[in-house]
Order: sequence, then structure tokens, then C-alpha cells
Amino acid sequence: MKTIPYKLMLEENEMPKAYLNMKAFMKEKPEPMLNPGTLKPCTAEDLEPIFPKECVSQELNDTDKYITIPEGIQQFYKMYRPSTLFRAYRLEEALGTPAHIYYKFEGTNTSGSHKLNSAIAQAYYAKQQGLTHLTTETGAGQWGTALAMACSYMNMELLIYMVKCSAMQKPYRKIVMETYGKEVHASPSNTTNVGRKILAKDPDNTGSLGTAISEAVEASTTFDDCRYALGSVLDQVLLHQSIIGLETKTALEKYDVEPDIMIGCVGGGSSFGGFVAPYMADKLEGKKAPKFIAVEPESCPTMTRGKFAYDFCDVGQVTPLAKMYTLGSGFIPSPDHAGGLRYHGMSPILSKLYNNGDIDEVRAVKQSEVFKAATDFCKIEGILPAPESAHGIKVAVDEAIKCKETGEKKNIVFCLTGTGYFDMAAYKAYNDGIMVDKKPTSEDLEKGFAYIPKLDGIQ
Amino acid sequence: MKTIPYKLMLEENEMPKAYLNMKAFMKEKPEPMLNPGTLKPCTAEDLEPIFPKECVSQELNDTDKYITIPEGIQQFYKMYRPSTLFRAYRLEEALGTPAHIYYKFEGTNTSGSHKLNSAIAQAYYAKQQGLTHLTTETGAGQWGTALAMACSYMNMELLIYMVKCSAMQKPYRKIVMETYGKEVHASPSNTTNVGRKILAKDPDNTGSLGTAISEAVEASTTFDDCRYALGSVLDQVLLHQSIIGLETKTALEKYDVEPDIMIGCVGGGSSFGGFVAPYMADKLEGKKAPKFIAVEPESCPTMTRGKFAYDFCDVGQVTPLAKMYTLGSGFIPSPDHAGGLRYHGMSPILSKLYNNGDIDEVRAVKQSEVFKAATDFCKIEGILPAPESAHGIKVAVDEAIKCKETGEKKNIVFCLTGTGYFDMAAYKAYNDGIMVDKKPTSEDLEKGFAYIPKLDGIQ
Repeated sequence: MKTIPYKLMLEENEMPKAYLNMKAFMKEKPEPMLNPGTLKPCTAEDLEPIFPKECVSQELNDTDKYITIPEGIQQFYKMYRPSTLFRAYRLEEALGTPAHIYYKFEGTNTSGSHKLNSAIAQAYYAKQQGLTHLTTETGAGQWGTALAMACSYMNMELLIYMVKCSAMQKPYRKIVMETYGKEVHASPSNTTNVGRKILAKDPDNTGSLGTAISEAVEASTTFDDCRYALGSVLDQVLLHQSIIGLETKTALEKYDVEPDIMIGCVGGGSSFGGFVAPYMADKLEGKKAPKFIAVEPESCPTMTRGKFAYDFCDVGQVTPLAKMYTLGSGFIPSPDHAGGLRYHGMSPILSKLYNNGDIDEVRAVKQSEVFKAATDFCKIEGILPAPESAHGIKVAVDEAIKCKETGEKKNIVFCLTGTGYFDMAAYKAYNDGIMVDKKPTSEDLEKGFAYIPKLDGIQ
Repeated sequence: MKTIPYKLMLEENEMPKAYLNMKAFMKEKPEPMLNPGTLKPCTAEDLEPIFPKECVSQELNDTDKYITIPEGIQQFYKMYRPSTLFRAYRLEEALGTPAHIYYKFEGTNTSGSHKLNSAIAQAYYAKQQGLTHLTTETGAGQWGTALAMACSYMNMELLIYMVKCSAMQKPYRKIVMETYGKEVHASPSNTTNVGRKILAKDPDNTGSLGTAISEAVEASTTFDDCRYALGSVLDQVLLHQSIIGLETKTALEKYDVEPDIMIGCVGGGSSFGGFVAPYMADKLEGKKAPKFIAVEPESCPTMTRGKFAYDFCDVGQVTPLAKMYTLGSGFIPSPDHAGGLRYHGMSPILSKLYNNGDIDEVRAVKQSEVFKAATDFCKIEGILPAPESAHGIKVAVDEAIKCKETGEKKNIVFCLTGTGYFDMAAYKAYNDGIMVDKKPTSEDLEKGFAYIPKLDGIQ
């Protein structure tokens, strides 16, 4: 057996040269997105006014198992990748577990998370097409920061709609995006029709990702040579994020490690989808595969308590409909601290995989328990995790403790999606003992479900 | 010639196994620290009530060229090191320079800077000695965060005095240290005699590193099994930081790169001293060496406008006296944004080397120009630098532009000591165009110099 270092590193020339297209491995494909006007499956022509052409082509591609990463994108990846896969020796020791714990850490770039992987791809494809502007929304701010960085790299303009409660909780996030030279509006804003309509009804609305998406999509139509970029949920985003899983697999195989359990947080599902991609592809081809556990907050329980149905991706109902686990586009989660996991829907690919039983388990966890795991982790392993990422830590630790009880020496691998430097107000609430766990009641959920459109004969 | 990747990485087993003790290479040694009571050179007995024993032994050691890094410290280093040495391909392209630019990036650990290298060593040696507590001061907050992390690793208690204006400018820094379970007081505080005395005279005093040091040293005497830790200036700290330079040299030699110019910021001098250590050792042994340029802020011009004299390391005048470049222990720099470079003194080793002409140049730069360099750098290279670190960027860019003018293809290597995630208020001031450059007048300097003690026959 090889000695495993603290950091299982790869050379730049060992990085993936192609993305893995999980959809091409699926026998039952996810249901197609629907044009909200005609309720017919979206065509490239429907989507190209919204997204860059190459992104549309990737979104609709369910046949090519691998899609080459252009040299231009590979160059940018080399500025901050391969990301480090850590062996958590100290955490194992602290838990007294026979399990081996590994984590793929996506947080060392300035944007602080995995989001940069797709931001660079989307900005690159937009630039190649001759576009000059992008618009986007951001919740916790990690996607907005990532796209701001990527657009700086590509010399592109960017307009960002940041969910208002996040913009208030994280003023410094906004300044980072501005430092990259980009424009940021708190959403709902009075710069779009959708925003003005929401504010007229409810001036104190603190926003949601769904609202911010509506505004960004609307704004993208007001510039020439402008398109919209989305940081999660879409099939293309999971495709780009497959680089996480591909690197993880290459690094683990170098040291002859087979994962038994793979764990990650899910908001829109992009980091988890990318992280498990090559192992899920193995499973779909009938090969041996680890157990897959996705983790979501109890306060926004999309997969554990949502419906598997066609729904809008935004509050304004201007986007295509997707068949996914959803709490309803009008569901307003409590403005708690894991901002990146507050989306009402879920990646259609992951939704389909979960519905088919290919994702073994989704676990909903309490915020206070997540922060306890985060705080313990930072004391032991040194890294201060994003609250979102800490959902994965919480379950990885639970699984490692189970191994202690059973004596099983499992390989537990989780994705540590990012850092919590801009979440210190949330940590303070936890440190001060004033963090409250919120869980929607059945009534809250019913209110959200009422937003799910009734589509006769389609559901 | 070998193709140089974006990141010149080392394996964990290529990491240094011994620190480089620059002092042992110096023919003219730095003047000894003096006991403030007797004005005689400090002995181990003088220093051991203040610092852990092994640290004292290192502080006084000017004969051993290499000092073994204990296995226990090496294990902690492997959790976040080797740090990445980047080739700045995009910056070179943006500047259109024939120069090759490299930077050693110390900012990927949660503490956000190189400070962790010495924090781990000092906490480790304290723990080995059976101590249970440490006290320290912190200016910008990077050292405090680093020691908080290190003490978490070692299960030690820690009491931190944070310069009041920094604590106000960077509330989130304080929360990070508290998240590691450590206690933080804004200094001057009413928890020490020195602090109470200062506040009685001037209740609005916003503090200085010198004041915070006095409080931390005093507090260290109030616990049993407690010592004091300092994050810069001391010889032992430069010794620990030599790991930066040793890694840099190993990585550059792997790719047959000889640096022509080495650049770094100086506050107390620890990162610069560690960064240049092995190359300076070459120079002191008569071998070929690069040009060394240290960079300091115009607002705290310790080396360019200070005096080379024996002075106290703190405001309260309780610490030993050191022969160094100094602006006087009572010098109050403007509360500007490069918090980590506001110290009145300078490493005695670097002071001696500069006085002897072994450091080729010290350049004082304007804050607004530093922030311009920082902002440009983050747009081009992606990394958001600490304001302190950006002093090095500013001069590296200036030197690269000179190469463009002369056509010289120099290898410029600078130390990017840390990240600016907790400095966004300063970035906002720059973005908003309200940053003011401050430069002490000759009168300001004279006021500071008046604090330098007159020591008959010693100066």
C-alpha cells in the first residue's frame, strides 16, 4: 500500500482534457426543459437568445460522453487548479474513527468556491461568440464573485443581481465583485420590470435566487451582445463541474483508493453533480460505485420534502420549465445563513438520478448542527468552511462516527466546496449562541407548492 | 529549457527539513538585544520568562547554519504547504514585458498569510515545554489569526491583543479568531496596567503594535505556564519563515530558474527575511545572488527615513532593546490600510544587512499606488492580495516595466504574503476614490525619534 500524503496532488498535465457529460451515461434521460410559451421541449433557437451558443449546445447534448475542454479554458484552469484533495488525518484522529476521510477542497481561488470552474467556461464561450456583456444573479455571492473574476480574465462586462438579504448580510462580498470592476444591484431592484413589480407589492421583500434570476434574465435582453449566465442547476454547469470529480478520481486512483461513500452539499446541485460525475458514470454503466449522499438544509428541503414536477426556475416565471425536485418558485426560505443552498429547485439531472434511486440518499440537516461541524472542523483541520460546504462535513463526520461504532474502515470522500471568509456574521451568530434552526411547516410547503404550474398531461 | 507550468509545485517530501539561520552566515552579526534594566546583552535567563525555551535558544543562536524542523512541526506544515510558486504568465502578457515574473503565494491557508509558518513553530515549542497558554498582539489580524489556528492545532489557550483601529476596521477578523475559540481584546484595553495608563491619558487612543505588544507581554505574566509569542521582527521568526525562501529556491532550481531580482514588503521584516534567506546566505558566502528590494509604505518609512539605533520594541518600554531601524517606539503612524506594515521598528537582522549594503534597496511607496497595483493584479491574476503584500506587487510591476523599456529578460520573483479578504473596507475606499496618501513630515519624524533612548557609549 502506498503512503498517502496530506495532500494528494496532481500535476497540471494530469488535469482532465475533457468534461464528463453524465447525461450521456443515463439510460433514462432527464425530461427536457419546456418553452414556457408553447410548453414544447426547448430547442436551441429557444435558448440561444438567453445563453451563449456553445452553452446551449452543451445543455442539449445527451449523447457525447466526453466534451473536449478548449485549450483556452484549460489555461485559465491552470491558474488555480488542480484543486487539492486532502487526507483528513487530524480529523480522523480527533474522531477516533477507523474510516479514512478525504476532502476535495475547491476554496483556494479568490472567488472562494468551485463556482469559478463553470464561470470561466461560460465567460470563455461567450467571448468566443463575440459577446461583450453577461448578466447573472448571485445568492451567497460566490457565483457572482466567480463570474466577476472570469469576466475580468476575458475582458467582459458583467451586471450582477445579488439577493438582497445576502447583500445586506455580506457587504464585503459586494465590494469584491466591484473590485473586479463589475456592477452589482441588490435584488429585487428597481432596474427591471420584474423587480419593480415585486417591490410595488412588497417594498420590504428580501429577495430570493428565483427573483434575482428573473431580473438578470430580463436585464440580459437590454444590452446588445449580451447573454445570461447561471451558476448552478443547468446541465451545462454540472458538465463544467465534472472537472472536480475527474480530478478526484485521478488523484485517488494514483494512490489506489476506492471511495466507499461520496458526500456533498446540494443547493442547485452543481458541485455535487460534478463531484460524483465519473463515479456515477461507472454506476450507470453497471460498474462498482460508492454510496452517494447529498446533503441539504432542513430550512430548504428541496429533495427530501419537495415534489418531482415541472416548475419554473425563477419567481417571475420567464425562464423555461424544468422537471425537477421543487418547493415551488414562490417558496421563500427563511433568510438563514447557508445562502447558497436556498434555491427552490434542483438540477434536473440530479433530480432524475435521485428519482431513479441512483443517488442513494439525501439527508436534510439542521443549521446549528452544520455550524457545530464547521467550527469543529476549522479547529481541527484549519480550514474555515463556507456554511454551504459544512453541510457535507456534518454528514461526513456522522458517517465516520458510524464507522467507529461498527469498526468498518470505509473511505469517505466529501467535497469541501468553499471557504467561509465572507460568512463571519453567521459564525458570530453561532458563536454567540443565537442561531435559530428553522424548518418549514407543512403549511409553508403547501404555500410554495401552489406555485407549481398544473400542466395537463405533461406531469 | 524546461517548460514552466503556471504553478511550480513541490511534493511534500521535497519540503525543507531544516530552517536556514541567516545570522550564522553573517560575518558581522546583528547587535545583541539589551536587557532594559541592566543595558547588558540579554541572556537566555533574561528571555526565558518571556518566550518558550526553544525559541530563546533559536533567538540567541548565531552559529548553526541549519536548525532541524521537528517532525511534529513538519506534519502541521504539510497540511497547507508547500505553498504555490506561480509563474505570472498573464501579468507578463498584460504588461508586455520580456521579464519573467514569479510569485510565491503564502495566502491559501485560512489565516491568509505566511504568519502561520512561525505561529505553528512557536505554539509547538511552547506545547513541548508543557506550557498551556500563550499571549500575543496582532495588528492587521493575520498574525492573531495564524496563532489562533496554531493554538487550536496544539490545544493551547491564547489571549490576543488586537490594535484598536484594526479591530474597528476589520470586525470579521476578530470573529475568525473567536471561531478558533480564542479571546480577543482591542488594544489599548483596560485589562493591563499599560493599557489603563494609556487610556487614562488618551481615551481615544486607537492603538499601535507597540502598545499591543506591551499589553500582551504584561498579560503573559499573569498566567502560570504562559509565555508570549511575537509574529515578526525577532530573529527566531525570520528563522521559521526561511521555509518560504527554501521552498522557493528548490522550486526554481527544479526549473533551472535563477532570480535576478527578489522583492517583498517589509513591516517587521519576517516574510522578506524568510523569503530571501537562502539567496542572501549565498551572497554572504560570496556566491552570485539576485538584487534584493524591500518595500515599505511611505506612511511608515522605517528603513528609508528611520534611524539605525537601539530602541524599545514596544510603547510601554517593557521589552528588551534592539538595534534596528526605528521611527521611535512612540511614533504613531496614520491609521491607514496596510495595517501589517505599521510597526515603528524593523528586524535587527534585516536592519544590519541593510546597513551593511547587503539588501540592495528599500523603496517607500504611496498607498494609492499600492492599491492600484493590487486592483490591477486581482483583475489579471485573479488573486485578491492583502494591502501589505501589494507593496511587493507594485515594485515588481515597476521593475517589469523597466525591463520592457530596456528589453532585459530578467527573472523577477516576489513574495505575495497573503490575501485581502478582510481588507475590503480599504478596497472600498480605493474603489470610491476617497483614499488619501499620508506621509509623515520631518516634524512628525522628530517627534517619534525623541522616544529613542540615549544610551551613552552604546549607540
